[in-house]
Amino acid sequence: MNQETLKKLVGKYATRYVEDDMTVGVGSGTTVKYFVEALAEKVKNNNLKIKCVATSSQTARQAKRLKLPVYSLCDINQIDLTIDGADEIDSNMNGIKGGGAALLREKIVATNSQKNIWIVDHSKLVKNLGRFPLPVEVIPFGYEQLMKKFEALGYQPVLRTNETSAIVKTDSNNYILDLHLGKINDPIKLATILDSTVGVVEHGLFLNVVDEVVVGNSDGISVLKR
Amino acid sequence: MNQETLKKLVGKYATRYVEDDMTVGVGSGTTVKYFVEALAEKVKNNNLKIKCVATSSQTARQAKRLKLPVYSLCDINQIDLTIDGADEIDSNMNGIKGGGAALLREKIVATNSQKNIWIVDHSKLVKNLGRFPLPVEVIPFGYEQLMKKFEALGYQPVLRTNETSAIVKTDSNNYILDLHLGKINDPIKLATILDSTVGVVEHGLFLNVVDEVVVGNSDGISVLKR
Repeated sequence: MNQETLKKLVGKYATRYVEDDMTVGVGSGTTVKYFVEALAEKVKNNNLKIKCVATSSQTARQAKRLKLPVYSLCDINQIDLTIDGADEIDSNMNGIKGGGAALLREKIVATNSQKNIWIVDHSKLVKNLGRFPLPVEVIPFGYEQLMKKFEALGYQPVLRTNETSAIVKTDSNNYILDLHLGKINDPIKLATILDSTVGVVEHGLFLNVVDEVVVGNSDGISVLKR
Repeated sequence: MNQETLKKLVGKYATRYVEDDMTVGVGSGTTVKYFVEALAEKVKNNNLKIKCVATSSQTARQAKRLKLPVYSLCDINQIDLTIDGADEIDSNMNGIKGGGAALLREKIVATNSQKNIWIVDHSKLVKNLGRFPLPVEVIPFGYEQLMKKFEALGYQPVLRTNETSAIVKTDSNNYILDLHLGKINDPIKLATILDSTVGVVEHGLFLNVVDEVVVGNSDGISVLKR
């Protein structure tokens, strides 16, 4: 199976976690896009009453287009379940997210969710995190000074730009620095350093967040549990 | 002397730290306003070549109006000296800032400054931090959930609004939650908790930041050094 077929497969598979009356956090990214499609179909076919909270304006648009009821996080009490993608997942089920620049809202939604499930194709499973550049959302004011600091620390930061070389702005109007770390030996230590760095809004290390990972393999689906 | 006279006095006093060719971080607040006035006069009278970096749009406007050369943080290499106010300073020279909602940029500028000096009237000196509500800048997305979390922790958060009851927005378009803590027993521990809280952009605890504090007392100026 090619990667696109695998993504579609896990996206559809993940709809089984969604039950009637649930409030569902809906993540971002290409795999989640397939989940949203399949979810809209399931909701329609089974006449389910659910509420959705989206982690990006893009996801919100797609969900609304497919007639899924999208709520603001402020209008709901508790998210029962969040389905999201991931860019890398290590053997401890820690992950890197933010390839789609939505890491801040993804982390806020995940933090407010009773249960978190990531859906990925098998290429996202790694021994150590870090080959995928770690996205860090930063305040535009003074970001150049922050880049210098990260450079001095050997983090090899690259300011994210789009295909027209314009600086990518997040949904919160911040910038993304992608840290080219190669291998992250101690994700917890790195997270602590980044948390306490002035100018950093949030980073893409999602540690001890996910409860289950649905993996699309060439021979079918497997589920990893914490 | 009344409080306003004291503020004016320390504002003027602080100009002695500024030398020719310096890049000066200029903070925010009522005491700093007097510093900016006195600085503009000193620069004019002595024909000084300095560069200013402002911590708030309000300060930038005042400085420009007084013909001080205001630079963006990205256009300078290093800030030699930052003069800023503070809302509370304890006996360890740790402080609370953010009463004027500019704590994020104030902290970014302070972090990039070789030397930091705070100018205050004596009413700001306290034994323990916390009687002044601790400002925390938060992402609007999901802030209600964050308030609930802070309430559960006993932090007594209050969303900052202005005189027309509109939510105050910071220069980075975030909200401010003021934590009514009464007494902060362990500022370092609290800072670590807030740093790692998802949705918190920055908080008003400025620990191990300031080098000297210029205090306006009823009988004149005193200077505290670390």
